[in-house]
Amino acid sequence: MSDIKITYFNVKALAEATRLLLKYGGIDFVDNRFEHSEWAELKPNMPFGQVPIYEENGKTAHQSVAIARYAAKKVNLVGDDDWENLEIDAIVDTINDFRGKIAAYNYEQDPAIKEARKGPLFQETIPYYLEKFEQIAKDNNGHFAVGKLTWADFFFVGLLDYLNHMVGKNLIEDSPNLQKVVENVTSIPNVKAWIDSRPQTDL
Amino acid sequence: MSDIKITYFNVKALAEATRLLLKYGGIDFVDNRFEHSEWAELKPNMPFGQVPIYEENGKTAHQSVAIARYAAKKVNLVGDDDWENLEIDAIVDTINDFRGKIAAYNYEQDPAIKEARKGPLFQETIPYYLEKFEQIAKDNNGHFAVGKLTWADFFFVGLLDYLNHMVGKNLIEDSPNLQKVVENVTSIPNVKAWIDSRPQTDL
Repeated sequence: MSDIKITYFNVKALAEATRLLLKYGGIDFVDNRFEHSEWAELKPNMPFGQVPIYEENGKTAHQSVAIARYAAKKVNLVGDDDWENLEIDAIVDTINDFRGKIAAYNYEQDPAIKEARKGPLFQETIPYYLEKFEQIAKDNNGHFAVGKLTWADFFFVGLLDYLNHMVGKNLIEDSPNLQKVVENVTSIPNVKAWIDSRPQTDL
Repeated sequence: MSDIKITYFNVKALAEATRLLLKYGGIDFVDNRFEHSEWAELKPNMPFGQVPIYEENGKTAHQSVAIARYAAKKVNLVGDDDWENLEIDAIVDTINDFRGKIAAYNYEQDPAIKEARKGPLFQETIPYYLEKFEQIAKDNNGHFAVGKLTWADFFFVGLLDYLNHMVGKNLIEDSPNLQKVVENVTSIPNVKAWIDSRPQTDL
């Protein structure tokens, strides 16, 4: 039994990058998923009321990006020096900003506000980010940073189904280099085996 | 002349943590500040249209948290091992989430939406985060993580005037342990010298 446990909803979303990274490195973990009906009871016990959380050796950590970076160090998918790690961290935070902008629209409860946000998001924000991401993926030969496979690629791939779900379309259908990023990650045997065997969820 | 250059508005806000960290370590940099009137012309040339940017040895990086982490490595204010860095990264991202929630209110252009956001922010979100931050600072002896001085403390101190400006009050006036975090950073001679000599700005 692994001493690593990831606790999250039964979805990919914010936990999947870490799951993919650990599986890539052949590191086993307890994939502890809960249902939405259980969340109200669990939430008060979570750090800052949020998941995923990551447990190891009796210690608990939170924040999905920080957890993914930690997992990346375990499996040697970080940069070769501090500057490379800065470049990786910067694009990961930018991908996460992109997620945040889509989420601000998707989770908006007020229909009027949501409608007002739709145009700017779909006509300005999404094309702006996708164009830059596509160019970065092209410049880095099918990767998001430093011209090789890093956890930035896993971070994007882990989020993509969730992003697509929130916007109701395949964001990268016209982005061949972003498709290459996905292929470069998902074709790795350990990763492919996880994708084929993991719980099937929409997001 | 230093080969490090930080480019940002003439404010503390998202650049100040990195400035404080470099000054702490006695590392000189070009403090390149521009006025709001220049921003429209500069913005298209910035990575993802954002600042601060950090330049060193002819290379450019973006994303304020990533830049601050890089500066922290230079001045040895990171953790002693990967788990400590996970704890530091997690609280930094949580402080940054707190900033994001305040900013979403502060920069809201629609007066009706802004008014609707005011109650939940001031009566729920801010007290929720401050109570937890205060407890963390107490548990860590006047620090934000791993019981000692790290860049997480600098990150909070660097943002605080900006946060206070956005909410129109001193967020930590009733939080003695968060005041201790501020004191622990600002009383360091190199830091104090910078604070006494830097351009005086509200945020």
